[in-house]
Amino acid sequence: MTRVTLESTVAAVRPADQPAMAAARELQARLTKPAGSLGALEELSVRLAGLAGTCPPPLPSPAAVAVFAGDHGVHAQGVSPWPQEVTAQMALNFLAGGAVVNAFARQAGASVTVVDVGVATPLPEGTDLIEANVRRGTLDMTVEPALTRDEARQAVETGIRVAEEMLEAGAKCLLTGDMGIANTTPAAALIAAFTGCTAEQATGRGTGIDDATHAHKITVVAAALERHAPDPADPLGVLATVGGLEHAAIAGFILAAAAHRVPVIVDGVIAASGALAAAAFAPDAIAAMVAGHLSAEPGAAVALAHLDLEPLLDLGMRLGEGSGAVLALPVVAAAVRVLHEVATFDSAGVSEK
Amino acid sequence: MTRVTLESTVAAVRPADQPAMAAARELQARLTKPAGSLGALEELSVRLAGLAGTCPPPLPSPAAVAVFAGDHGVHAQGVSPWPQEVTAQMALNFLAGGAVVNAFARQAGASVTVVDVGVATPLPEGTDLIEANVRRGTLDMTVEPALTRDEARQAVETGIRVAEEMLEAGAKCLLTGDMGIANTTPAAALIAAFTGCTAEQATGRGTGIDDATHAHKITVVAAALERHAPDPADPLGVLATVGGLEHAAIAGFILAAAAHRVPVIVDGVIAASGALAAAAFAPDAIAAMVAGHLSAEPGAAVALAHLDLEPLLDLGMRLGEGSGAVLALPVVAAAVRVLHEVATFDSAGVSEK
Repeated sequence: MTRVTLESTVAAVRPADQPAMAAARELQARLTKPAGSLGALEELSVRLAGLAGTCPPPLPSPAAVAVFAGDHGVHAQGVSPWPQEVTAQMALNFLAGGAVVNAFARQAGASVTVVDVGVATPLPEGTDLIEANVRRGTLDMTVEPALTRDEARQAVETGIRVAEEMLEAGAKCLLTGDMGIANTTPAAALIAAFTGCTAEQATGRGTGIDDATHAHKITVVAAALERHAPDPADPLGVLATVGGLEHAAIAGFILAAAAHRVPVIVDGVIAASGALAAAAFAPDAIAAMVAGHLSAEPGAAVALAHLDLEPLLDLGMRLGEGSGAVLALPVVAAAVRVLHEVATFDSAGVSEK
Repeated sequence: MTRVTLESTVAAVRPADQPAMAAARELQARLTKPAGSLGALEELSVRLAGLAGTCPPPLPSPAAVAVFAGDHGVHAQGVSPWPQEVTAQMALNFLAGGAVVNAFARQAGASVTVVDVGVATPLPEGTDLIEANVRRGTLDMTVEPALTRDEARQAVETGIRVAEEMLEAGAKCLLTGDMGIANTTPAAALIAAFTGCTAEQATGRGTGIDDATHAHKITVVAAALERHAPDPADPLGVLATVGGLEHAAIAGFILAAAAHRVPVIVDGVIAASGALAAAAFAPDAIAAMVAGHLSAEPGAAVALAHLDLEPLLDLGMRLGEGSGAVLALPVVAAAVRVLHEVATFDSAGVSEK
C-alpha cells in the first residue's frame, strides 16, 4: 500500500457537490412537513449530501471516535491545576470504558479508540490502544517551539492513518476526541494564530481555574505567540511552534475524513483548533466538518465562527474527550435519516397548503 | 381498577426529593471529569434524581411518544394556510411510519402511539391508534368557548389514561407529541392566558405564514382572550375557553408522568402550552418536565421561561409531532447514564487537582 501522506491527503480534498446539495433541497421540500420546519437539520442534511456527492447521503453508522492523547511542555508554566500524570491515567480510564466518552459512545453505538500520539508517561499496550507516540510530550512553547516540523507532520499523519484505518474498517462517520492536561493552552494559541484573535479572546478556564491562573494563562499564550509569530499560511509551522501532538493528529484525522468525503463531528475547543489547521491545509475540508457542540471555552466560538460552522448543541460542556461530538451523533443521524425515511406529500396522500 | 381522575392525579404529584438531588450532586463531584464540565447535563441528572427519589435515577428507556391529534374551530378564521383535512392525513402518516417523528423515534428506539382526541375527520382504527375522540374538533374560540368544561376534562383525563397505560406497559420516559392544523393559535392563547404575556408575544408563524396572516393571527388570539378573559387560577376554564383537545390531553399526560415520578420530555410550543396548564393544576409537576428543545415559535420561549425550564436543543425547529422531544431523548439518556457508568477518581485511580 502506498503511504498516505499529508500532501496526498490534502490533494484529495474536493469541494462539496452542488448537484447533490440541490437534490437534497428539492427532496426536503417534498417531505411531509412544512418547508424549513426542521431548522438546522435541513441545512445539515444538504451539507452532508454535498459531502457525499449523493442524495440521500449515507447514514453516519457505524461511527468511530478517536481519542488522541498527548502531553504539553507548557504545563510547567502552571496553566492547569491538574498533574500531568492524569493524561495517562485518563487514557487507561478510556481503555477500561470508565470515562464519560465511553458512556456516551455505548449509548450512541460508536466505537472508541485511544491513540497515544504524545503522552509523557509510557502506557501499557491495551486491546484498543494505538501506540503512535511521536514524543513524550511537547516542549514548552514559551521557551522554544513545541515540536519540530517533522514531529508535527508525524502527528498529522498519525491522525490521517487512524482515520484511514477506521474508514477501511467501515466507519461512515468519524468523531474527534482528545485528552491532554494543559491542552487548552496550545489550543488557544492555535486559535489566535489561525483566526487573528487575541490571546485574551482565545483563552478560557479549561477544566476550571481561578481568575489569577486564567490571567496567567493568557500571558503564557500571548508570550508563545509573540516568541514564534506563527504564520497562518504555514499550518505545519503553526502546529510545530504553538501546537500539540493531539491537535495536529486531529487536523490530520479531519483531513482524511474530508479526502474520503465522510463527515467528521468536531468536538470542543481542542478539536476546533485542529479543524482550523485542517482548513488552513485544505479549505474545502470544512465541507466534511460538523460542529458537534459549542464548548464553554471562548476560543471554540471564535474558531467555529472563523470556519462558518454552527454548533448543533450548546449545553455549557467543556470536557473534551470527544464527549460533545458523541452527544451530537444522534442529531446528525436524525438529519440524514429524514432524507431516507420520511414520506413525501405525494406518497403519503397528504394535502399541501 | 379505580378510575384515575384529574383530581387524584393532581393529588399524587409531589415535590422533588432533596436528598436524592444532594446524592446526585455529590456523585457528580466524584466522577472522572472536572467538576461542572458536563454543563446542563449535570443539572439535568440532579433534577431527574430528585424526580425519581433515588440516585442514580432509572435510565429513560423504554421511552414512549404519544401524538395527540385534534382539530380547531378557529381554523375558520384563516389562521393557517393548510386545509383541516391534513390533521387526519398526518395521523395516517404517523400510523404508516412515514412522518418525521417516526423516523426520529426509530432511531432513538422510542415507540409512537397516535391518539385521536379530537380529529374532525373520522379515522380508521389502526393497530396503534387510540380512539378517544372527545369531539370532532373544537368550536371557534373567537365566537364561543372552544370546549365545555366537561370536554376539557375528558381530554385531560384521556392524556392521563394514555400515560397510565404506557407506564403500566413499562415506559420509563414519556414524550409529548401533537398534530392539529391551526393548533399554534390556541397554544398562543393558552400561553398568554397562563403567563400574562400579550397575544403578540405569544403568537408566531406556525408552519410558516406571511406577514399579513401573522398580523391577523395575533388579532384572532387577542380577540379570543378578550372575549373569555380566562383566569389562570382555573386551568380547566382556560383549556375550555381558549384551548384545544390535544393541548388539554398533553396537560393530563404530563400530570400523570409527574404523579408517577417519571420524566416527560416536552416538545415544542403546543406541548409548552399544555405544560403551563399542567403546572397550573399542580406546580410540582414541573419537576417531571424536561424541555426537549426551543421551538422557533416565540410563545415557546415565553412558556419555558415561565416554567423556569432550559431547553436542551435549539435547532430552529418548528414541526411539532414530538420531533423535538424525541431528538432530545439521547441527551436525557446520556445525562442519566453518566451517573450509572462513569468511574470515580478513586475507582479509576485518577489523580485529582
